[in-house]
Amino acid sequence: MISPIIFIFSLLLSSGHAAVQDFCVADLTAPESPAGYACKKPENVTVADFVFSGLGVAANTSNFNKAGVIPAFVAQFPGVNGLGLSFARLDMAPGGATPIHSHPGGSEAVYVVKGRITAGFVSSNANKVYLKTLKKGDVMVIPQGLLHFQVNAGRFPVQAFVSFGSANPGVQLLNLALFGNDLPTEIVAATSLLDVPQIKKLKAFLGGTD
Amino acid sequence: MISPIIFIFSLLLSSGHAAVQDFCVADLTAPESPAGYACKKPENVTVADFVFSGLGVAANTSNFNKAGVIPAFVAQFPGVNGLGLSFARLDMAPGGATPIHSHPGGSEAVYVVKGRITAGFVSSNANKVYLKTLKKGDVMVIPQGLLHFQVNAGRFPVQAFVSFGSANPGVQLLNLALFGNDLPTEIVAATSLLDVPQIKKLKAFLGGTD
Amino acid sequence: MISPIIFIFSLLLSSGHAAVQDFCVADLTAPESPAGYACKKPENVTVADFVFSGLGVAANTSNFNKAGVIPAFVAQFPGVNGLGLSFARLDMAPGGATPIHSHPGGSEAVYVVKGRITAGFVSSNANKVYLKTLKKGDVMVIPQGLLHFQVNAGRFPVQAFVSFGSANPGVQLLNLALFGNDLPTEIVAATSLLDVPQIKKLKAFLGGTD
Amino acid sequence: MISPIIFIFSLLLSSGHAAVQDFCVADLTAPESPAGYACKKPENVTVADFVFSGLGVAANTSNFNKAGVIPAFVAQFPGVNGLGLSFARLDMAPGGATPIHSHPGGSEAVYVVKGRITAGFVSSNANKVYLKTLKKGDVMVIPQGLLHFQVNAGRFPVQAFVSFGSANPGVQLLNLALFGNDLPTEIVAATSLLDVPQIKKLKAFLGGTD
Amino acid sequence: MISPIIFIFSLLLSSGHAAVQDFCVADLTAPESPAGYACKKPENVTVADFVFSGLGVAANTSNFNKAGVIPAFVAQFPGVNGLGLSFARLDMAPGGATPIHSHPGGSEAVYVVKGRITAGFVSSNANKVYLKTLKKGDVMVIPQGLLHFQVNAGRFPVQAFVSFGSANPGVQLLNLALFGNDLPTEIVAATSLLDVPQIKKLKAFLGGTD
Amino acid sequence: MISPIIFIFSLLLSSGHAAVQDFCVADLTAPESPAGYACKKPENVTVADFVFSGLGVAANTSNFNKAGVIPAFVAQFPGVNGLGLSFARLDMAPGGATPIHSHPGGSEAVYVVKGRITAGFVSSNANKVYLKTLKKGDVMVIPQGLLHFQVNAGRFPVQAFVSFGSANPGVQLLNLALFGNDLPTEIVAATSLLDVPQIKKLKAFLGGTD
Repeated sequence: MISPIIFIFSLLLSSGHAAVQDFCVADLTAPESPAGYACKKPENVTVADFVFSGLGVAANTSNFNKAGVIPAFVAQFPGVNGLGLSFARLDMAPGGATPIHSHPGGSEAVYVVKGRITAGFVSSNANKVYLKTLKKGDVMVIPQGLLHFQVNAGRFPVQAFVSFGSANPGVQLLNLALFGNDLPTEIVAATSLLDVPQIKKLKAFLGGTD
Repeated sequence: MISPIIFIFSLLLSSGHAAVQDFCVADLTAPESPAGYACKKPENVTVADFVFSGLGVAANTSNFNKAGVIPAFVAQFPGVNGLGLSFARLDMAPGGATPIHSHPGGSEAVYVVKGRITAGFVSSNANKVYLKTLKKGDVMVIPQGLLHFQVNAGRFPVQAFVSFGSANPGVQLLNLALFGNDLPTEIVAATSLLDVPQIKKLKAFLGGTD
Repeated sequence: MISPIIFIFSLLLSSGHAAVQDFCVADLTAPESPAGYACKKPENVTVADFVFSGLGVAANTSNFNKAGVIPAFVAQFPGVNGLGLSFARLDMAPGGATPIHSHPGGSEAVYVVKGRITAGFVSSNANKVYLKTLKKGDVMVIPQGLLHFQVNAGRFPVQAFVSFGSANPGVQLLNLALFGNDLPTEIVAATSLLDVPQIKKLKAFLGGTD
Repeated sequence: MISPIIFIFSLLLSSGHAAVQDFCVADLTAPESPAGYACKKPENVTVADFVFSGLGVAANTSNFNKAGVIPAFVAQFPGVNGLGLSFARLDMAPGGATPIHSHPGGSEAVYVVKGRITAGFVSSNANKVYLKTLKKGDVMVIPQGLLHFQVNAGRFPVQAFVSFGSANPGVQLLNLALFGNDLPTEIVAATSLLDVPQIKKLKAFLGGTD
Repeated sequence: MISPIIFIFSLLLSSGHAAVQDFCVADLTAPESPAGYACKKPENVTVADFVFSGLGVAANTSNFNKAGVIPAFVAQFPGVNGLGLSFARLDMAPGGATPIHSHPGGSEAVYVVKGRITAGFVSSNANKVYLKTLKKGDVMVIPQGLLHFQVNAGRFPVQAFVSFGSANPGVQLLNLALFGNDLPTEIVAATSLLDVPQIKKLKAFLGGTD
Repeated sequence: MISPIIFIFSLLLSSGHAAVQDFCVADLTAPESPAGYACKKPENVTVADFVFSGLGVAANTSNFNKAGVIPAFVAQFPGVNGLGLSFARLDMAPGGATPIHSHPGGSEAVYVVKGRITAGFVSSNANKVYLKTLKKGDVMVIPQGLLHFQVNAGRFPVQAFVSFGSANPGVQLLNLALFGNDLPTEIVAATSLLDVPQIKKLKAFLGGTD
């Protein structure tokens, strides 16, 4: 003999053709809406949809910035769709730094797994710099949309686990936004006060045109 | 002679191929998004989409809990999609009680239509019990996600109308979550402190395995 | 030599089949959800999607109200989908006025481009009237869902640019809601306290029946 | 021997001077914010804050509309603050009707406890009437901000329990908004198309001036 | 004889000590919360709180950028608190341009009142430039948090009315964020790829140190 | 010579008595609102408000569960107020496990810093178990409000960094909710189906009464 209330409740909940869920694992092949991707059918969801294993290996830091990032945003980790969270791994070799950048879609938290990181952000309006060297185990929050950066503060490789308060925070890297596209040099000059030769040098370096 | 401003405004609003609406009656055959279901085309919406008549008959209470619930969530009542409200009817025979449960997606309100109900919830963090016997006409609110229950406090059948602050609040029944599935007995024991024989007894009763 | 971090980050972001974006230009041919329309594929989005040019010409005011409105809501301006903003142009000839109306979906701001406008709204609960004559350059805000109106306060044509805090604020024109449909005269009378001959006169004028 | 993890977790949570809670019972003597009232200190919260008993008695219907409403909004029921729900009781004598009105702050649901009610709302944009006679046990939803009404459809008193998807939905009664304040008659006439004698008659009846 | 339902409803709504409102005009002397400022008491609110007249005069453009902005954010226009809207006026002399900047807290719309403006923004992730010359009457939207700019595209002064989808969108001006504070030159260099002499030149110009 | 546009804009933004900010560091001595705590005055905010160092040391696991948690919620880390993020550190000795629990206020992510963890959650409605053993570097998400747990899956101590999508997610530990307070034994029995001796045994162990 079993408890019918559960079955009465459950039966009604599941008797429709509807797929009512606690979560909404992204179907990346369906269109997005302003609230995120459409949900995979719940019968196709498994625990693997809620786990991301790609942050267990170091990002490649053999590059100019001596830094690498592995994102686990909704495009890489469909299980975060609709949950208001996403993640990344940051590695920086000695001398490495992330380009100054912002995340227009969400706030960030940097948790230092290994090494020492000098991290900072600049407030809007007052342009005040909030700068601190973080040690292993520290966590620093960076409010949504503000320019910020991380610098390896020591002589050894550093590793951080990064959380975002959005499934799709976006990344606007300042130097790519200014110099890595076809934004005309004269507009960059007029709106940034940078000198034209400086702009042309970085456009050449970063693949920009015009 | 008619007022053209209305028609100018209306014409522009309706001249597109767009289906802009005040509401979004769920098309349960289309995929969900994190914000709910896609909307039925407005030309197919009628007043019947906004009315649910299934709460006019008593839920079946001929079961172990002597209690029954008829939900009017978005899966049963597509008109609530996007409106942030849904409903249920609760009936309890003398001696009946709802299993302790929570609604992860929304707060609840219990309005007593008939009889006396002892209702309560437990706060998180402080684990404080908020418990009260409600009489006909009383309404009690239960904050989102907290464990709560209702007990028939009298010798007669009771009836309540329940409102939720979400079109899809979900229902997590504690005993089904622990004992009505394949969650391994050793994990239930380790994380609940319940004794293994107790777990096995309820798994047998509620159809659980492992 | 280029900066690989950018490419590492970008590559991962774009390597999926996903179309992750900063914006969600409406695909008006796809179904709506409670959060708005599905997004156009980002490769099909151009700057033209973010610009609306239809407000550069005056609305037709050759009508009974001597007033006209050109909306740039999501149905006309798909680029606002998901951004929480939309717009309209209001023109009023001398003696013109907008019908008293409300926007159930968003707050409004009226910016006077030309002329003088007497604008007002009525609060709920207290029924207090907030009324002021605005001059060129003034901006007035009207909270969501409240009845409001604009009247040409001078002897010349007036023009205003209107902003809304929603991509789809909706427009409920009071006289069309009461008199421009099949709402039965007896119900209008019982719920508005208006006299039946008044109701019948306006129903005839505005195309209502019953 | 007790389980220290609980105490470790709890201790840290409660060791601050902070009052972190699952709920935010309104302190009606403190200022409001856009998100609602400030919270009562949790040590002063009791179960009585979550229960409202004022809907157990009938509203007075000895009035012109033969209808009465008892609200349980945040001002009457502080426990709903921040929960996105509030309530009311509606009674209508035979021949009674609510004045046509809207709730700018939230959607509504009418649950018929006794009798038969003809309820309806008018959509924005299309001005379509959604009208239905509800019987005992039916629940009808009315989207936020739209004009709507209830009429006693039978020969006996009716009673309804009303839920709102906001702690403070507000009430804009059409005839009081137009005729129960100092909104100038000429503005009412110009923006409603009503005849001046009709306006003056209702202003006199409802206490309006100007 | 008057309609008691209105008074019954109103009386209950106003009989408490509570100040329940449709709006929340900011009391700038009280603390902020994450949702905005505390509300002025409703009895002290007048229509003047909902009107801002400071945008009727041109901003001063006698400066290096030949451009000026007058903000009407919540700090200047308390009536927008909680309404999700704010405003600004932009004037640019011939040859003028706004510094490239972002608004971390809200999306923007530029409505051209006079002249021709070349406006653009850069998407995150793809770094794509969306650039267009706007004429009088055009409105362009710029998604939240993205770098953007406006340039006077003609030989005459230009004027624009700017709307934001937040009462407090914030302004992060790129050159002040990098060069107008004490952000160390070596960090700017490491995270922007700019040359040190360029950085020092702009720090000197914009008042930065270190 | 400096760029006046910046100063014009800045001056206006800062000239008021208002404290408009990008963030809202909690003033834990002021009352909470439904949106969180009131903000510290921005002139008193330093970078230390955005950094939490308490997660660098292991939680005490010398307890019955062989597990310990250090929370960095808004009560411990005021800088997260309004940012929609908070954090915790989890340590488990060999044989350790967290009590089954839920967070009514936000979704969770577990990032494994050291060791192997078997983590799982139970869906509402369908009661499906999503269970997986995570290795170092894996991250698993757990939707808001669902019962979940973590078990040390190996023979060595494990450490995890936990993120939440809320500044104040709350913690409802199942066994404390049922057995660690004055919830009457007969109600626990009636609503959980547990046997009375089991309930009494755990009430004795966990400090419960009644």
